[in-house]
Amino acid sequence: MVNTLLAPELRELLAEKNYQELCEFCQSLHPAQVAEFLSALSPGEIWEILSHLSPQLRGEVFSHLDEKVQIEMIKTLGREAMGKLLSDMPPDDRVDLVKRLPKKLREAIIPAMAQAEREDLRRLIAYQEGTAGSVMTSEYAVLTPELTVEEAIAKLRREAPDKETIYYSYVVDDNQKLIGFVSLKDLILAPAKAKVKDIMHEDVIYARTYDDQEEIARMIQKYDLLAIPVVDEQERLVGIITHDDAMDILQQEQQEDVEKLMAIAGSHEVGAYMKLSTWEHFKSRIPWILGLTLLGFISGYIVQTYESILIQVAILASFMPMLADTGGNAGSQSATLVIRALALKEITTKDALKILVKEFKVAFLMATILALVAYLRVLLFIGHSSSTASISPIKVGIAVAVALAIQVISSTLIGAFLPLIASSFKLDPAVVASPMLTTIVDITGLLIFFSVAKAILGI
Amino acid sequence: MVNTLLAPELRELLAEKNYQELCEFCQSLHPAQVAEFLSALSPGEIWEILSHLSPQLRGEVFSHLDEKVQIEMIKTLGREAMGKLLSDMPPDDRVDLVKRLPKKLREAIIPAMAQAEREDLRRLIAYQEGTAGSVMTSEYAVLTPELTVEEAIAKLRREAPDKETIYYSYVVDDNQKLIGFVSLKDLILAPAKAKVKDIMHEDVIYARTYDDQEEIARMIQKYDLLAIPVVDEQERLVGIITHDDAMDILQQEQQEDVEKLMAIAGSHEVGAYMKLSTWEHFKSRIPWILGLTLLGFISGYIVQTYESILIQVAILASFMPMLADTGGNAGSQSATLVIRALALKEITTKDALKILVKEFKVAFLMATILALVAYLRVLLFIGHSSSTASISPIKVGIAVAVALAIQVISSTLIGAFLPLIASSFKLDPAVVASPMLTTIVDITGLLIFFSVAKAILGI
Repeated sequence: MVNTLLAPELRELLAEKNYQELCEFCQSLHPAQVAEFLSALSPGEIWEILSHLSPQLRGEVFSHLDEKVQIEMIKTLGREAMGKLLSDMPPDDRVDLVKRLPKKLREAIIPAMAQAEREDLRRLIAYQEGTAGSVMTSEYAVLTPELTVEEAIAKLRREAPDKETIYYSYVVDDNQKLIGFVSLKDLILAPAKAKVKDIMHEDVIYARTYDDQEEIARMIQKYDLLAIPVVDEQERLVGIITHDDAMDILQQEQQEDVEKLMAIAGSHEVGAYMKLSTWEHFKSRIPWILGLTLLGFISGYIVQTYESILIQVAILASFMPMLADTGGNAGSQSATLVIRALALKEITTKDALKILVKEFKVAFLMATILALVAYLRVLLFIGHSSSTASISPIKVGIAVAVALAIQVISSTLIGAFLPLIASSFKLDPAVVASPMLTTIVDITGLLIFFSVAKAILGI
Repeated sequence: MVNTLLAPELRELLAEKNYQELCEFCQSLHPAQVAEFLSALSPGEIWEILSHLSPQLRGEVFSHLDEKVQIEMIKTLGREAMGKLLSDMPPDDRVDLVKRLPKKLREAIIPAMAQAEREDLRRLIAYQEGTAGSVMTSEYAVLTPELTVEEAIAKLRREAPDKETIYYSYVVDDNQKLIGFVSLKDLILAPAKAKVKDIMHEDVIYARTYDDQEEIARMIQKYDLLAIPVVDEQERLVGIITHDDAMDILQQEQQEDVEKLMAIAGSHEVGAYMKLSTWEHFKSRIPWILGLTLLGFISGYIVQTYESILIQVAILASFMPMLADTGGNAGSQSATLVIRALALKEITTKDALKILVKEFKVAFLMATILALVAYLRVLLFIGHSSSTASISPIKVGIAVAVALAIQVISSTLIGAFLPLIASSFKLDPAVVASPMLTTIVDITGLLIFFSVAKAILGI
């Protein structure tokens, strides 16, 4: 986001080299707000302001800039400034940014960073995308069990500027193994001379580096945590994931789900609509559209096969769109509900039978009403048609009603079944939803329609 | 969620009246985990355990029980126990629960609560659903500007058990007007004798009671806050909304958006799939399905109108489903992207022209490719058809390709345009998405198809 409101004032202060007032301005607002105002300036101007801030504030403001601005700045800055900026960023944001840099730039920038940060980056960047390890930060507060409460608070006070949060501290033994957790509230409430080991919670809710990031974010949500510790295979504490990152993860995952529901492939950066070029939009949308269109040719082939029926009773063609749409809508409803319930772990694939029974009952009720409505529609309007002289309107009505009922029930069941199948194959259930489903129930719908029509109308 | 793993052990401890061990069990786990284990017991058994816990822990565990279990317990408990349970709950959870109680039970239970909690409930329940006021809690920590840091920490230490969080404190003047904010981190880092007014942040990010809950949750997310203060029309502090509630709000709103996209009406309780009866599912799904089916009859009417064309060139019927589906898919894609960008405030209705230009460009690229594919499809397969002797396959191919291109472009633009229109009328853009859109572009698609076919084939 860019806020141009203060750009003239900021430029004036820069011209006057009034760095004191610029620093005060940056300190008075939230780093995210400062980033919005600075985004209205050129990369060089932004750097001139940032270079006068404290390393911590510089890192925070820079982290809140849009990725495009960040990359633009890194491209235009000298090697030293670049290294400084990256070293000051929170470790998790730094990893995200470095991952998105063009390869050449990445290789140029890593050696420019301070050694500690460089090693931290190398360690964090190794975790696979989508895992807890890939989103954790290494700036967490650690205590040892033998510290007194007083000593622990003094330690946190010293270390606060470098930690993502000091509200949760994690207690580790000599081998860095996670053995407990204390909140700053626990420390504040405890007697000054008490030992950390006596007041710490030993039942720590934790994550492993290879856990799925969405699952961990849901744990943070479920247990209302400020942060969750992440341990490696030797149970050693290696990072934490904070509540604000959990919110961003959940938002990103939900965005991805919606886009899958709507058949949009590609990168799932939040809030990227305007940033992406026409060509990028085209590339992320054409695969699905083209694939589904090709799949749609199958329905064309079915219609072609039954062409003789259509020539005899042309009125039947007019019910094809309604039948296809209703199937698609019924299927989308059940698919959406099942996908959501699976995502929230409310149901598992083991409940498949229960779910299908429930969906059958719901679909049966809907099918009854829709069949009745369709039957009345045929009786009321079929008189206007020219080609049905030889076929009784009542028979046509019955055929349409029966086909619609079967279509609604089968689409609802297919809509519930496909996500369960996908899930049991460890695929994301969302990929089989809406557009894919619509195309599938179109095909089944036409087969149902022509078979029923053939049987009932006897043609 | 129910976890039956420990039910036998818990029942044994109850039979032995070993309340000490039961209490220890409840204290050792997170309240949300305790609630899962207790859910396997009967309401009476749960109450027997809860009644031996500290009021605070009792309130927390009870708040984490499923709503059905909560209501079941309230129904079976005596008036006194009922009042006690409600009084111990966090104020925001209490309001949520009372709102969902049947009217009779609600009227019976309010007088059973302690006076302070009763008044708090009456105050909070008055805020309109969906506003910041309706989700805030009244258990926040308040400081006055003249306190020293030492006094402030002592005050927080005393009040900690009754506050939702002590990590953020809000500073108010004599009229309860919000004038500043300090974090516990600020207090810990400041000299003991400093005054709160000297270290507090005066630029507080805050909400008003009537603000939209989703907007406020997004602010919490954007600024990585632990909580946001809520003020009334006189700028007086009346509540706070915490980060965990913000996560739940965003999840609920996103759930609602997805369900709107998929045309499912009704209550949007998270994780309610299994809880809702068949009849409740039916009621929330049939309105959309029926409405869209009725709307779908319009496409039927259009086909009926052009029946003479179909009788002459029956092969055309076989392209109807593909044309309708592709339009629906293209429209869903653009609608989804625009709806999401609107929700994230990345774009506003003022950007309408820019968006439509962008969508036109994307659609034009997609249309070119799809038209080519469709043309080839017609040329390759039309030979198998029986009824096209009199019409040149090349002409049919051109007609299908041109119709498909126009359909893709118009559907994409309609998909982008409808959410913008809805948004400018202050309606939720999501309601006009997917199923509604599919039905609309079916209608426009058939009109395009038959007009193009008539013009190109000269029939």
